[in-house]
Amino acid sequence: MTNPPPSARACIPFVSVENMVRLTAAIGLPRVLTELAAYIEADFLRWESFEKTPRLASHSPEGVIELMPTSDHVNYAFKYVNGHPSNLKRSLQTVVAFGVFSDVRTGYPLLMAEMTLLTAMRTAATSALVARRLAPAKSRVLALIGNGAQSEFQTIAMQTICGIEEVRLYDIDPSATRKAARNLAGTGLKIISCATAEDAILGAQIITTCTADKQNATILTDNMIGAGVHINAIGGDCPGKTELHSDILKRSDVFVEFPPQARIEGEIQQMPADFPVTEFWEVLAGRKPGRKSESQITLFDSVGFAIEDFSALRYLRDKLEGTDFLQYLDILADPDDTRDLYGMWTRIAAATAERAVR
Amino acid sequence: MTNPPPSARACIPFVSVENMVRLTAAIGLPRVLTELAAYIEADFLRWESFEKTPRLASHSPEGVIELMPTSDHVNYAFKYVNGHPSNLKRSLQTVVAFGVFSDVRTGYPLLMAEMTLLTAMRTAATSALVARRLAPAKSRVLALIGNGAQSEFQTIAMQTICGIEEVRLYDIDPSATRKAARNLAGTGLKIISCATAEDAILGAQIITTCTADKQNATILTDNMIGAGVHINAIGGDCPGKTELHSDILKRSDVFVEFPPQARIEGEIQQMPADFPVTEFWEVLAGRKPGRKSESQITLFDSVGFAIEDFSALRYLRDKLEGTDFLQYLDILADPDDTRDLYGMWTRIAAATAERAVR
Repeated sequence: MTNPPPSARACIPFVSVENMVRLTAAIGLPRVLTELAAYIEADFLRWESFEKTPRLASHSPEGVIELMPTSDHVNYAFKYVNGHPSNLKRSLQTVVAFGVFSDVRTGYPLLMAEMTLLTAMRTAATSALVARRLAPAKSRVLALIGNGAQSEFQTIAMQTICGIEEVRLYDIDPSATRKAARNLAGTGLKIISCATAEDAILGAQIITTCTADKQNATILTDNMIGAGVHINAIGGDCPGKTELHSDILKRSDVFVEFPPQARIEGEIQQMPADFPVTEFWEVLAGRKPGRKSESQITLFDSVGFAIEDFSALRYLRDKLEGTDFLQYLDILADPDDTRDLYGMWTRIAAATAERAVR
Repeated sequence: MTNPPPSARACIPFVSVENMVRLTAAIGLPRVLTELAAYIEADFLRWESFEKTPRLASHSPEGVIELMPTSDHVNYAFKYVNGHPSNLKRSLQTVVAFGVFSDVRTGYPLLMAEMTLLTAMRTAATSALVARRLAPAKSRVLALIGNGAQSEFQTIAMQTICGIEEVRLYDIDPSATRKAARNLAGTGLKIISCATAEDAILGAQIITTCTADKQNATILTDNMIGAGVHINAIGGDCPGKTELHSDILKRSDVFVEFPPQARIEGEIQQMPADFPVTEFWEVLAGRKPGRKSESQITLFDSVGFAIEDFSALRYLRDKLEGTDFLQYLDILADPDDTRDLYGMWTRIAAATAERAVR
């Protein structure tokens, strides 16, 4: 990859994990999350101009592999992402992801990137974008139930975008809570490590659930939820994987990204097919009300949608410009005569054979 | 990429265009096509063990971008491929592709590869695998209508796998025919360049159509097709893109890969939804007859199916073992503690900042 690329048209920029860290560290994580939220908001505001489809999921007993495509008819993006809770016991990530951003006019990929980190960031940015609209005014305390890979990104986004000053951590595994508390030290947040979920939600205006079990768990029960809170439920995101007791859903006003996907994958998979939901983009666009009263429970039933990944890749493309946080991948065959793919094959074969002989 | 990878688990092997050429040249193209056909045959014989879905297509006025996933419940594969006939006038490929082969148990990608070349090879291998079963015994003459990027691979596969001795070339652009004739010199084939499609099909037992126009073209009309031939129609592969007059379909026994996809994308999109077709894998498996008489017209209405790409990536994985025809891509975030993605971010950020300062 250090050699000059075979030809400019044969190669696409690739952002590795290391380069994703370098780029986002150079910008600064709070600024990245703020700017990502702005890109997502801009794309949500033109929701109707996107081609939308529920993601294409391949389920297995241990997890799921998904392809999430979308297009605004100028650019096309897709993400490959898995979800394998059992990976934890193999010391592997439960979620890894990468994505591609393409030119609709030619069909050519323009950019490929790791998206394990980028997904954690765009999910946090989306959560905070939604909470800024739906959470009670002057929300200052965040309960964070589930202290795994997403938790610090969620917290920093809520701090930066929503003005959270205190985070109350809880995980069934105390070592996960210790890890999150250690990572968040120095952010300026007041950090409270809690021994129970009940303790964690004390005084919280925003309750985020981000656990990873692939089962219908009940992280929150109805009696735990007081009036006026905003629940940010991001862990329930595939069939058979939910976090909230259905009684909570009945008391809440539920907001979703894309209903056809949320009804299959979200918390509302527990509810009838006509259970009322509001598409969040309509709140942003001023078409539907968000929070209507101080006592209302708002619930963002987030499963992650392809447009958020499109926004994240669009942001990445813009931020890469003029930097060296990328490599070039020789992934596009580029013969001089476009109809002469075979001639290109024979020429490269001859050139490399000659090199091998020398 | 010349540095040691961040960690073995963080990286996946990537096969660039150059390495795809080096690998296939080292094996030899005829052997690659023969072995690919064997891998595809083996996977077609266990057809029912695959998860199958029509590809997910994003159409635009100028072309289509498609994702083609499948899984045998041990491995998962998908291909990204476009189809943009208008790219020719921009000196770009009409079709570029890349693919990923994954572990279903963990959801982790195991291999990423260019697939522009690999698709041309697997399409040729599939065509020849089918023709060996359906074409008249002792087929010796191939008519090749459309002399673009796929044509030489098609010809060499038909020579190697079906024993073709003569190829009759025709393209509406004579320079494409000259290119193909030049590339095929030295293969031992008798090469006849023809001025018309009528001339090209004279005496041919196998007629391959592989043109690229995105329109309902009529490359072959009914009066051109005599009894007993095998037609290998690979150019009609998306809605609104066909090559054959419908009268030919009525006189032929039509074989397809996956009917739900072929009815949308293949030549049979011109026919009623109940037009009878045979799934080719059932012929291989001995469940359905192939060619029944010398006078029968057999027609392979090929649109390309995800299992063929799965087979090609499976072959590539096996052939890569022990070679250096690959690079490593740092595409998987791999924190020491799987729940500590943020900690990994801060450590890499600190390390690279330090490096930048020195």
